[in-house]
Amino acid sequence: MTERNKQVTELKELGEFQLIEALTKDVKIYHKSTIKGVGDDAAIIDAGDKAMVVTTDMLMEGIHFSLVYTPLMHLGYKAAIVNFSDVYAMNAKPKQMVVSIAVSGKFTLEALQDFYAGLRLACDTYQVDLVGGDTTSSLTGMAISITVIGEVEKNKITYRNGAKINDLICVTGDLGAAYLGLQVLEREKQLFEQNKNFQPKLDGYDYVLHRQLKPEARKDLIDFLEEKNIVPTSMIDISDGLSSELLHLCSQSNLGCKVFQHKIPVGDKAELVAAELNLEPLICALNGGEDYELLFTVPLVDYEKIMKNTEISVIGHMVDTSEGRYMITEADTAIELRAQGWNAYGG
Amino acid sequence: MTERNKQVTELKELGEFQLIEALTKDVKIYHKSTIKGVGDDAAIIDAGDKAMVVTTDMLMEGIHFSLVYTPLMHLGYKAAIVNFSDVYAMNAKPKQMVVSIAVSGKFTLEALQDFYAGLRLACDTYQVDLVGGDTTSSLTGMAISITVIGEVEKNKITYRNGAKINDLICVTGDLGAAYLGLQVLEREKQLFEQNKNFQPKLDGYDYVLHRQLKPEARKDLIDFLEEKNIVPTSMIDISDGLSSELLHLCSQSNLGCKVFQHKIPVGDKAELVAAELNLEPLICALNGGEDYELLFTVPLVDYEKIMKNTEISVIGHMVDTSEGRYMITEADTAIELRAQGWNAYGG
Repeated sequence: MTERNKQVTELKELGEFQLIEALTKDVKIYHKSTIKGVGDDAAIIDAGDKAMVVTTDMLMEGIHFSLVYTPLMHLGYKAAIVNFSDVYAMNAKPKQMVVSIAVSGKFTLEALQDFYAGLRLACDTYQVDLVGGDTTSSLTGMAISITVIGEVEKNKITYRNGAKINDLICVTGDLGAAYLGLQVLEREKQLFEQNKNFQPKLDGYDYVLHRQLKPEARKDLIDFLEEKNIVPTSMIDISDGLSSELLHLCSQSNLGCKVFQHKIPVGDKAELVAAELNLEPLICALNGGEDYELLFTVPLVDYEKIMKNTEISVIGHMVDTSEGRYMITEADTAIELRAQGWNAYGG
Repeated sequence: MTERNKQVTELKELGEFQLIEALTKDVKIYHKSTIKGVGDDAAIIDAGDKAMVVTTDMLMEGIHFSLVYTPLMHLGYKAAIVNFSDVYAMNAKPKQMVVSIAVSGKFTLEALQDFYAGLRLACDTYQVDLVGGDTTSSLTGMAISITVIGEVEKNKITYRNGAKINDLICVTGDLGAAYLGLQVLEREKQLFEQNKNFQPKLDGYDYVLHRQLKPEARKDLIDFLEEKNIVPTSMIDISDGLSSELLHLCSQSNLGCKVFQHKIPVGDKAELVAAELNLEPLICALNGGEDYELLFTVPLVDYEKIMKNTEISVIGHMVDTSEGRYMITEADTAIELRAQGWNAYGG
């Protein structure tokens, strides 16, 4: 009420990590069982023989999703997947999930059941138990909060900060398509808002739409790493774009990196859509986000094993921090990597 | 988009438990480590020697709190406490917490820091580690989601469904004051909305306001039970009023109950405020809610141990289900207990 004399800092002045730091710097840890707190894809809790991984995400209507073009079943599926992806990024496997949602009284039971059908499909596909939650009302938009608990053997926990010089930088799948899918949906939404009789044209965009509306998490990579007995030195999932995530691995591991443009995986289908939308596919891969692929580093000795998996691209290697963080273009120019990651408050 | 031909059920037609049932009835459980899923104060996960307890709550502005009269520090404190209370209700101790919040860009960093100061105070008071979360933006009101993880020895887990005939029904502290505090705040808010120069009069209401704005969770009871080697046969925390919670213990334990009006703990301070507001203090205790006291049952053999704790009232005992669920008044009349519990959609 008497804020006038106090110092006032607008949230948009702060980056995501500055904000987290400002809010959590005075947090005290009381329990030995807290192995890792704030600051990675997930927290880690000692659970005897194994460790438990805990991650949480909040999704708000109008910010993270639009009900104009997102079917509720897809929304439920994706809301679960983004959390599973954070668990896999610790080299762990998701086991239990709790889900809270708030919706207005205008929602019907059948609409909520569609949302839960999506959650259940994700749980059945990835073998995760939905064990609890909270369902409540909202005066305005829909809010979703999901917490997932995973399990990992203690000697396999993979943080963001363990990369070493010369480690290979690897990424699964292809990048940029989810962002392109979002651009297609936003374009059609705008046309629809101008003319409510407009019929969205979504034919031919199947792949990029699928990547945006019904992404998958890379369980297959975690299974592959286990089977081949590979423990990455660092790992993160790609939610904000390759550049931003690479910079996290570098800064947390206190290293530089060198990645090669021609190694960055952009699929043919994404290239076609990018051309149509006048977007540069490489930029979509670097800055687009929401791919939910895994970015990780492994020692050179694992190169042969890694190469047997066609889902993995080796895009470069870690270097000393003095060498900077660069992408080498096809014309052999070094471009400094910059984070264009998402800022919740538009800063 | 083509909902027209589908069956439509409005959410307000359903009670809270019908809604949960409708949404989660098809959920499959894949992991042996999931000891207890949906349906109690918290889920239980096997963690080797011990069990982990997981509970989550979502709080929405305008539904669960009003920023008109709730200081953000108090809001942070209470948001944590209500989850700690759910963990204690399983006879467990809260250890770790993750917190997600969504706020509009109009919030300042300093306002969020006040909220976090409240979270931290709760964590420091109850020795809980804040290990992660998510901070994001909201187009409209504030949304808060908290998940707390607790720990309990497997043989001490206390569900809602273990009460036996003749078990004593016990409750901690006093009841009804938090509801009365809310009535005072709502009265002053309405006067303020009619006249913005109005100065709220909150003197003399300290106790009921404190119970509403800065409740505590009953860690002391869990410590006492441990020290005295008592394991309750059933337990629940009082968030929706004594009647509603008693009925949960009865229906989940498949029993009836008999409680005595004159044993139900209503404090003097609450009685004074109730008189001023023309409310019946007993009704506030039965139906008010947000007391965050613990309601539990113990075998008769524990009677002497229980009586040594002045914070515990024995209010009645469990009976066969054929005897119904009644409160015996001071005039020796039997009144059937009814749930007036909170329904998120006003049904």
